[in-house]
Amino acid sequence: MTKENPVFENLMKDFNSELSHSGVNGERVAQRLYELSEIGYTQIGGVTRPGLSDEEKSAKKLVKNWMVEAGLKVSEDGAGNVVGRLEGRDHTAKAIASGSHVDSVPNGGNFDGPLGVLSALEVVEAWKETGYTPDKPYEVVIFTDEEGSRFNSGLTGSRAMTGDITQQEIDQLRDYNDETLEQVLEHYGSSLQQFREAKRDLSELELFVEVHIEQGKKLEETGQPVGIVSGIAGPAWTELEFIGEAGHAGNTPMIGRKDPLVAASEFIAKIAEFPGQVSDTAVATVGKVEVSPNGINVIPGKVTLHADIRDIQEDTRNELLDRIIDEAKTIAEARGIQLNVQQNTKILPVPIAQELQSELAESLVKYSITPTYIPSGAGHDAMILGRHLPVAMLFVRSKEGISHNPKEWSSLNDCVSGIHVLKDFIETRMKR
Amino acid sequence: MTKENPVFENLMKDFNSELSHSGVNGERVAQRLYELSEIGYTQIGGVTRPGLSDEEKSAKKLVKNWMVEAGLKVSEDGAGNVVGRLEGRDHTAKAIASGSHVDSVPNGGNFDGPLGVLSALEVVEAWKETGYTPDKPYEVVIFTDEEGSRFNSGLTGSRAMTGDITQQEIDQLRDYNDETLEQVLEHYGSSLQQFREAKRDLSELELFVEVHIEQGKKLEETGQPVGIVSGIAGPAWTELEFIGEAGHAGNTPMIGRKDPLVAASEFIAKIAEFPGQVSDTAVATVGKVEVSPNGINVIPGKVTLHADIRDIQEDTRNELLDRIIDEAKTIAEARGIQLNVQQNTKILPVPIAQELQSELAESLVKYSITPTYIPSGAGHDAMILGRHLPVAMLFVRSKEGISHNPKEWSSLNDCVSGIHVLKDFIETRMKR
Repeated sequence: MTKENPVFENLMKDFNSELSHSGVNGERVAQRLYELSEIGYTQIGGVTRPGLSDEEKSAKKLVKNWMVEAGLKVSEDGAGNVVGRLEGRDHTAKAIASGSHVDSVPNGGNFDGPLGVLSALEVVEAWKETGYTPDKPYEVVIFTDEEGSRFNSGLTGSRAMTGDITQQEIDQLRDYNDETLEQVLEHYGSSLQQFREAKRDLSELELFVEVHIEQGKKLEETGQPVGIVSGIAGPAWTELEFIGEAGHAGNTPMIGRKDPLVAASEFIAKIAEFPGQVSDTAVATVGKVEVSPNGINVIPGKVTLHADIRDIQEDTRNELLDRIIDEAKTIAEARGIQLNVQQNTKILPVPIAQELQSELAESLVKYSITPTYIPSGAGHDAMILGRHLPVAMLFVRSKEGISHNPKEWSSLNDCVSGIHVLKDFIETRMKR
Repeated sequence: MTKENPVFENLMKDFNSELSHSGVNGERVAQRLYELSEIGYTQIGGVTRPGLSDEEKSAKKLVKNWMVEAGLKVSEDGAGNVVGRLEGRDHTAKAIASGSHVDSVPNGGNFDGPLGVLSALEVVEAWKETGYTPDKPYEVVIFTDEEGSRFNSGLTGSRAMTGDITQQEIDQLRDYNDETLEQVLEHYGSSLQQFREAKRDLSELELFVEVHIEQGKKLEETGQPVGIVSGIAGPAWTELEFIGEAGHAGNTPMIGRKDPLVAASEFIAKIAEFPGQVSDTAVATVGKVEVSPNGINVIPGKVTLHADIRDIQEDTRNELLDRIIDEAKTIAEARGIQLNVQQNTKILPVPIAQELQSELAESLVKYSITPTYIPSGAGHDAMILGRHLPVAMLFVRSKEGISHNPKEWSSLNDCVSGIHVLKDFIETRMKR
């Protein structure tokens, strides 16, 4: 352990060792979170492990070794997705799968992804220690390139596995070095052909369950270590181009101006009130703004806004989207501004079955945790799989909701509580 | 004449040759506008002649040759300002000066600057042809680096001549190649020491009068070729930093967000209504916006706006500035956003004496032009000189108000009309 990386000590500092029971070992989880944090470790305490990088590959290799030690049969598909499989008593039964990813955003945190993989693996470790054999097969999965920092895309591995990545996208992907997916895969040790063959027969799986840090503050507010994801919001990414008339800021009278920034600003200020009008879980954000020519003394000629609109229900998400686009049209028309709207991404929200939420709630209650139901605003690999098979998700409390940042943190107590709940939920499912 | 540069033909095409009289020669003006347009000519029909560049130097050299041929005594100061002086009957009288600049913005037009220099020179050409000798000395001036595209600053030559450029600015200036002013001057053939010595005893001058294209549409609206500048607006450049809380666009509920872009947008939309409340000539523009981190799925943490606030009267300009800053504070406070305001530039508006405007009006009327009074929103060398001596300005009609663009255009008829008015105004002044 290098002196500079305090992940292990910080995890162990406040750990309540009584939580290590039934084969689940908190210190092992801390040690593994630490060992993963060493790969791509940045001097300010974060990690940089882009998808399909040498760092992501090393992280997978480390986990694969642990999988083998735990008795799993390990395979890797052409997209780099790793599956560690434990056969159950009934070889013909559909498998229950759990996992997440080990890639990160640049200078990201140590929990987003790794906690889900290590939680899924820790269930197997516990079974091994207690001599438990599940009725059905069980799979621990590491998906490739969830974050998308490599290609400005994301969920690459899970979409390859489900076949949801289009040929067009495969052809167009360029990474931060302007390399094609083919070039990146070749460096990684795969090929486009093998990538395409990663598409799996998903009827082999009964269910996918993912543990993930909350990346929000709701569990802190309710004071609970673990919560139940009530649905995964699908983002609609909408590009709105407001085109007016550029001019000299000094020489153009106010009357008669066609300033697209004034129109775009009226729009941004107005739509902040809209999500609350359609549902409690809807959100709308303008995060990216491009102003052209962006000069101090020039009335802009063009302003492009990138809006991110989400909800966990398709109907309310689409209602919000429609209202927002209508508002843009109304404002643009009133101000004599030309408006172009382009829908770049429109991912379906993934509902989580009431039945699975109830089963998770039963497992939580066994550990004296009061169920908190949280919509997931962020996309996860479970969102992709959820289009094809039943999925469930558990959130583990995040300190101050901070994520994608070296300060991302979840206490080991909360992480281990999440593992116990996951294990109980899976064991209950195994018996059904 | 290269076939690619159509400036001369286009100028001559619609020229009414009856406007060439009293020694003023429209074809000579067209030829000279064309010859200047050849220096730094860009393939799309504009010019690129940054201040203190080889191109600006070549343009000055060309004009200096014409000055010598016209009988002017030419000198150049350490800031590169060129003065061509004609002695009058009374050698002890203060001089009347006229001129402008020959530098341009990148890919700028062929009239912004050159027209003012060639108009001042054409007055001398006319006097030479008609055998007129003025009572007082007359100076044709070319100021260096008016546009400021070199150093992201501007009015460099006129401020060196008046001593308005500070030692701090001299030390801090960096050009587009990250060269210091000292390095740029050395390449140009001057030095920092000589630059400082460019400060002139301005009591030698009675008056400075500048002809410039309007860069606006008011003369097109009134149908007049030439108009009278009623005052030169002083820009107040204000930087407003809105600091909120960055967060994940999907995982952060709408309630409790501190989105600085929503606050900044409310501000931009609101202040567009303010200038009309203080005066008819006031303008306020947000032209430059920086959003951080500017990611599609990230609530911004910080938004920086650059506001340009102008009026030709100091009191109304400052009233507008105060109201705008108050509004920013009110909005930021209501939304829990931190606000930092920085005043980067605050140039005093330069009023133009009623007496001089009346004299210009008398000259206009002699040429059957109905006086149109136009506030100049843009800064000009006359603005800098106007802090130290009486100044006057004439605007020549601009096609569609377009400027800083290859499409910038004024008809030769309008240019020559401006020269006649300038000549009459100066001759009247010579007799006082």
